[in-house]
Amino acid sequence: MDIINIIEKKKFSQKLNREEIEFFVDGICSGSIADYQTAALLMAIRLNGMDNDEIFFLTDAMKNSGQILTFDSIKGTKIDKHSTGGVGDSTTFVITPIVAVLGFKVAKLSGRGLGFTGGTLDKLEAIEGMNVALSQERFEKQVSDIGIAVSGQSANICPADKILYALRDVTATVDCIPLIASSIMSKKLAVATDILVLDVKVGDGSLLNDYEQTKKLAQIMVDMGKQAGKKVAAVLTSMDEPLDEYIGNSLEVEGAIRVLKGERNNLYKVSKAIVKEILLLSGEFDEENAEKAIDDAIDSGKAYRKFEEFILAQGGKSLILPKAKMYEHPILSKCEGYVSKIHTRDIGSLNMHMGGGRMFKDDKIDYTVGMKILKRVGDYVKKGETLCYAYVNNDEQLAKAETVVDLFEFSDLPQDKTKLIYEIVH
Amino acid sequence: MDIINIIEKKKFSQKLNREEIEFFVDGICSGSIADYQTAALLMAIRLNGMDNDEIFFLTDAMKNSGQILTFDSIKGTKIDKHSTGGVGDSTTFVITPIVAVLGFKVAKLSGRGLGFTGGTLDKLEAIEGMNVALSQERFEKQVSDIGIAVSGQSANICPADKILYALRDVTATVDCIPLIASSIMSKKLAVATDILVLDVKVGDGSLLNDYEQTKKLAQIMVDMGKQAGKKVAAVLTSMDEPLDEYIGNSLEVEGAIRVLKGERNNLYKVSKAIVKEILLLSGEFDEENAEKAIDDAIDSGKAYRKFEEFILAQGGKSLILPKAKMYEHPILSKCEGYVSKIHTRDIGSLNMHMGGGRMFKDDKIDYTVGMKILKRVGDYVKKGETLCYAYVNNDEQLAKAETVVDLFEFSDLPQDKTKLIYEIVH
Repeated sequence: MDIINIIEKKKFSQKLNREEIEFFVDGICSGSIADYQTAALLMAIRLNGMDNDEIFFLTDAMKNSGQILTFDSIKGTKIDKHSTGGVGDSTTFVITPIVAVLGFKVAKLSGRGLGFTGGTLDKLEAIEGMNVALSQERFEKQVSDIGIAVSGQSANICPADKILYALRDVTATVDCIPLIASSIMSKKLAVATDILVLDVKVGDGSLLNDYEQTKKLAQIMVDMGKQAGKKVAAVLTSMDEPLDEYIGNSLEVEGAIRVLKGERNNLYKVSKAIVKEILLLSGEFDEENAEKAIDDAIDSGKAYRKFEEFILAQGGKSLILPKAKMYEHPILSKCEGYVSKIHTRDIGSLNMHMGGGRMFKDDKIDYTVGMKILKRVGDYVKKGETLCYAYVNNDEQLAKAETVVDLFEFSDLPQDKTKLIYEIVH
Repeated sequence: MDIINIIEKKKFSQKLNREEIEFFVDGICSGSIADYQTAALLMAIRLNGMDNDEIFFLTDAMKNSGQILTFDSIKGTKIDKHSTGGVGDSTTFVITPIVAVLGFKVAKLSGRGLGFTGGTLDKLEAIEGMNVALSQERFEKQVSDIGIAVSGQSANICPADKILYALRDVTATVDCIPLIASSIMSKKLAVATDILVLDVKVGDGSLLNDYEQTKKLAQIMVDMGKQAGKKVAAVLTSMDEPLDEYIGNSLEVEGAIRVLKGERNNLYKVSKAIVKEILLLSGEFDEENAEKAIDDAIDSGKAYRKFEEFILAQGGKSLILPKAKMYEHPILSKCEGYVSKIHTRDIGSLNMHMGGGRMFKDDKIDYTVGMKILKRVGDYVKKGETLCYAYVNNDEQLAKAETVVDLFEFSDLPQDKTKLIYEIVH
């Protein structure tokens, strides 16, 4: 077997078999396959696709490239959730304490942000003292003790994914269903959780901007999860606007805290939909009592206190977050009309360029910068009215933040609100 | 401008502009673009294509990546020929002395063999003492003095092509019209010859196996040559069988000498067609006297003596070539019937595996090994009749050579002979 023949087959849209895919994954891990050959194959996969068998073989080979976490020491029903990534997407901080309050064990391995999307670990690190690199022993103990732990993945889990992910990012092969599905699911199948709910984003600020393609991605991932013996569902949600009003690392934690304290906004609605699916999959709740249990967890203050307990357990000093020097600097609309479109991906990129994200893997993050989006699609905005707040530390960041006005489109005609939750895939 | 956006555009089948293509070529030469990004773009080009403008921009940028040879010291009409590569394809050794005898100046920069195709420089090096790395000064002086010089390209000519060619070979992106056309023509346009005739091969043993695609390739190359002020034509010839009976480095030189001494076989016919186009393009010959002039050059012995003069001028000791230890070992047919197909590419690969070619750039070549193909498509072969001769130095090489019988297909029905020359593209 040789890699050139494997690339050749995919170039001619032929199906790769399990042995060929394992040869490829072994080769990238051992270094016997060069990065440029991997890149050529990634582009051939991006353009010629893979069928479900190939995606399954790839996922399985990537999963088996590293350590499998069995979580033997954790008793109870182990929960995992995953978002395909978006802007102002801080559901993890809302979902995990609610689920823990309801008696489940949340064992969540998270990633960092790259490009226009934020990352859970970066947001947590906005909190002083927070440790997001727990040892396996401490991670499992914390899940057992308080019901939540969130940590970065060790280098031993899915090393093949780390190599492919880094290469996809610099070869324009990110937007590819087989590669997205295998990247996500190889990591999810490498950890022995019982229930997995996927938040699959669709729209301008997501990886894929086509509804049918996104639904296909969701279905493939759900099928792979079920095949591996997990209880799995995917919630298809909109990323045509930033989910929360707050964008930025420290700000998104603040936004989540507001929901845990009772605010009923879009972040609340999507988080609730995801928790509800977790509860239904567990078999311990039905349609009626699931929603009530969620709101009770919030309204009783238990979810907020659980979040605080989680932060403190993981080394966080307090829930008082660092603030930018220029806090809530208003940015005024230059136009008048109904908001017809928000360029969500560009807002994510803008936050990155302001210092709140990474263009390259080793870039440093300014945790305090960000924006609050006050106006949504369908809202009527007058000229001179405040469109957003900027949170910045210097004039250079402010000048960048002010360009956010160009990322809104206006119309003279009334506009429908964006649909938030499209459907659930089982 | 950044390379990820350029890859992205081609991934979405968008047209690249001149600035983007120059940015790419500059970047591969300076090293600012990584090999894996180049590989991803090559595969995107292979799968989504390039239009004629893009191919022209790419060719021009590659040409300008290095030195341009103006050949100022060479007086007279300067001739170049190029074959897209095949098996048993030794026309250069027949064409160049005839053309020189007829008063033209052949300034030919050649390459080495890789994979199933042979290379002119390797074949010349089968001759003891032969120097195929002439200085520019010596090269031009030899062309002026005797009318022929054949040398390897200096590293300064089209460095971008060297990088792309090496990458294409290991990323399954060889069979791509825009990349073939730009690779060939960037090198041809970097040397100031007046007349260029391209021998564009089509069929099993060539880069492309589709007639219409090959014709398209020929037309693009001819158009680019004319645009650059050259007189250009392309001869489309068959590579569905090895061209000469002899395959192997030393053996192919022997085969060419036989034609220069008067043998009228397929190698003679294709060489004559190419020389005829050169003569017609020069304007100094017409249909009638061109063919006669060619045969006169051979029959008078002048072409053979010119070849000898060229070999001696370039350091070759004599035209007595090194021979394999087991010379003309007969390989017998196991089948009976009309030859219906010869797997030409596989015969080229077999010669490589016998030691007569390179799988990798640094492999050493055994110049003496090879084969002589006695039977052609359409010939009737009896079981036990000699199909080929093997020329080998040990039993291992012989065992490999004997597998050549599997590369012939037979039929009970009479078969048409392979058409040799398809058409001329102007």
